[in-house]
Amino acid sequence: MEFTLIKKDPTSRARLGRIVTDHGKADTPVFMPVGTQGTVKSLVPEMLREAGVEMVLSNTYHLYLRPGHEIIHELGGLHRFMQWHGPILTDSGGFQVYSLAPLRKVTAEGVIFRSHIDGSKHFISPRLAVEIQEALGSDIMMCLDECPPYPTTFADAEKSLALTTQWAKESRDVKQCSRQALFGIVQGGCYPELRQRAVRELINIGFDGYALGGLSVGEPKEIMFELIRDFTPLLPENSPRYLMGAGTPDDIVVCVGYGIDMFDCVMPTRCARHGLLFTNEEKVVIRNARYRKDEAPVDSSCDCHTCRNYSRAYLRHLFAAKEILAMILSTIHNIRYYMRLMGRIREAIEGGRYAEFSREFLSRRK
Amino acid sequence: MEFTLIKKDPTSRARLGRIVTDHGKADTPVFMPVGTQGTVKSLVPEMLREAGVEMVLSNTYHLYLRPGHEIIHELGGLHRFMQWHGPILTDSGGFQVYSLAPLRKVTAEGVIFRSHIDGSKHFISPRLAVEIQEALGSDIMMCLDECPPYPTTFADAEKSLALTTQWAKESRDVKQCSRQALFGIVQGGCYPELRQRAVRELINIGFDGYALGGLSVGEPKEIMFELIRDFTPLLPENSPRYLMGAGTPDDIVVCVGYGIDMFDCVMPTRCARHGLLFTNEEKVVIRNARYRKDEAPVDSSCDCHTCRNYSRAYLRHLFAAKEILAMILSTIHNIRYYMRLMGRIREAIEGGRYAEFSREFLSRRK
Repeated sequence: MEFTLIKKDPTSRARLGRIVTDHGKADTPVFMPVGTQGTVKSLVPEMLREAGVEMVLSNTYHLYLRPGHEIIHELGGLHRFMQWHGPILTDSGGFQVYSLAPLRKVTAEGVIFRSHIDGSKHFISPRLAVEIQEALGSDIMMCLDECPPYPTTFADAEKSLALTTQWAKESRDVKQCSRQALFGIVQGGCYPELRQRAVRELINIGFDGYALGGLSVGEPKEIMFELIRDFTPLLPENSPRYLMGAGTPDDIVVCVGYGIDMFDCVMPTRCARHGLLFTNEEKVVIRNARYRKDEAPVDSSCDCHTCRNYSRAYLRHLFAAKEILAMILSTIHNIRYYMRLMGRIREAIEGGRYAEFSREFLSRRK
Repeated sequence: MEFTLIKKDPTSRARLGRIVTDHGKADTPVFMPVGTQGTVKSLVPEMLREAGVEMVLSNTYHLYLRPGHEIIHELGGLHRFMQWHGPILTDSGGFQVYSLAPLRKVTAEGVIFRSHIDGSKHFISPRLAVEIQEALGSDIMMCLDECPPYPTTFADAEKSLALTTQWAKESRDVKQCSRQALFGIVQGGCYPELRQRAVRELINIGFDGYALGGLSVGEPKEIMFELIRDFTPLLPENSPRYLMGAGTPDDIVVCVGYGIDMFDCVMPTRCARHGLLFTNEEKVVIRNARYRKDEAPVDSSCDCHTCRNYSRAYLRHLFAAKEILAMILSTIHNIRYYMRLMGRIREAIEGGRYAEFSREFLSRRK
């Protein structure tokens, strides 16, 4: 993987860049739709491409449990398995172990946990997390980390960080495949001192990119923004910076201004399945009775397949009738909304006017 | 609507023809996928077209109850509403009233029934059934009929038939729109004498096409085949003949040989959603553990999007993980299987060797 920093916005800390992998490029700031189980829910890959998606994320924890990374490896890797031929980032599985597994025990060697599917017992170590991701063949891998809950005492956060750093070292050491990049994850809870230490230690180990982890886990948004704002400048300028698991369109616009290059979030796909459709004006709750006879598209300024072809009334009908097509068409729209947003973000940076863009965007819906 | 009889097979009673409507043509014998609620479940219309679908069926009963035919009319008709620009056949709603509505009462004027959705009370008459279908703007409309259950006494079947004939007359009389064709439905239970009477009476009234109704409702398959075999010759040669609600690939192959031109059935779409995939060799139960590592496509002789791109192992994984994409990819395959079957049927008629084709097809899986 190569990352090229193309331009720095003079009015903010926003950056324009490009990630190039063996599976193609992704212009940054980039948003990666989430393909948890080897499919971005409700879509065929062609629909992702048509919506302008360049890179997707998939979850190691899920694929490890089902169908199993060995099977995917035998079948030629994740790209071939799911027929997504663009870049793929896989997480380490850590976050899902902490958030989904019904039982878990963290030791210096790794995490013992039970599957949320069948209760079977599993052990994952930093080495195994890398090996699984190497078997999947993703373009960007993440180190196994420990993700402390919010709130956590300083002492607990410090202990957890020591483990994450130790694991990061191990991950770096066991990585075999030179084609696949490996990112380190900055932890440290809400303690600036620990975050600072985490950054220093990760840079010493040396990674292809740096992620901010352990955020969006329940802490007040101001704290999250403050941590991101204060710690992105400490990260190496020529490596991509990835904010894991956030966010809303507003979160993205704010954090790009702090120098974040990569985002992923289930929000566009999950909201779509619940009939919440993104527009610049308002979030459209498509089941609402007021759309019963509405022949307008979800967003008349949108160029997606759904908005070019279907009325709000039809989408509302599909949700009322519990038709699968409701989820397909809504997901197409929401993903395209995110992709258009990222396009406008990159344009604003290109034009050297990101602060203005950000101000306008964030005040629009107030 | 125009129907052209292009060729009669010399070895059977199979016919090659073409239906031309304001929304394009359909080569017969034709299979119409079922779009119950204004969508062929799990697919966007582009996928239907790519699979070779020319004509679809939609259910008046469902669309009348939800979202309501007036709304669809106001929004420009069913073609525009669901973005299917090829021919659409709508049924009269009769069959669904008999099979889905929790309460119903048949009078000389029509049927009173309660909605299976919210229990609300409704009345549908032959006139209203035509008016609803005119509001929907389908290309082929069906007369409201009474569909007696199997078994029915001769006396009941005779009484029911008298009503169906009376309603057929009324339907013919109230039809306003010359663009839309109207088909009569041959009822009469399993009594040849009544079926014969039904055919005579419908021809006297005069319709654009003739459907065989009240079959596939629980009677032994031999009785169904016998009735079809004996009564298609009584129907006008230059009108299309439509066997409602059947069938399996085998049913279709048999009934084409008896002179049927049109078919519809939920089988390909419903089976797909349950992971039953059609091939010429066997029905693939894709959840089966034996496909866990199977890198072959569902059917290596199939040219559908699914078979060109995905392994059985991936489809199995999607079903195990309860992913929506499982239903999308399976439906694409099953619909394409039916379309390829219809293509082979038409080719065999074209080549004047339908009896041979039929024999081979039906013996293949024995």
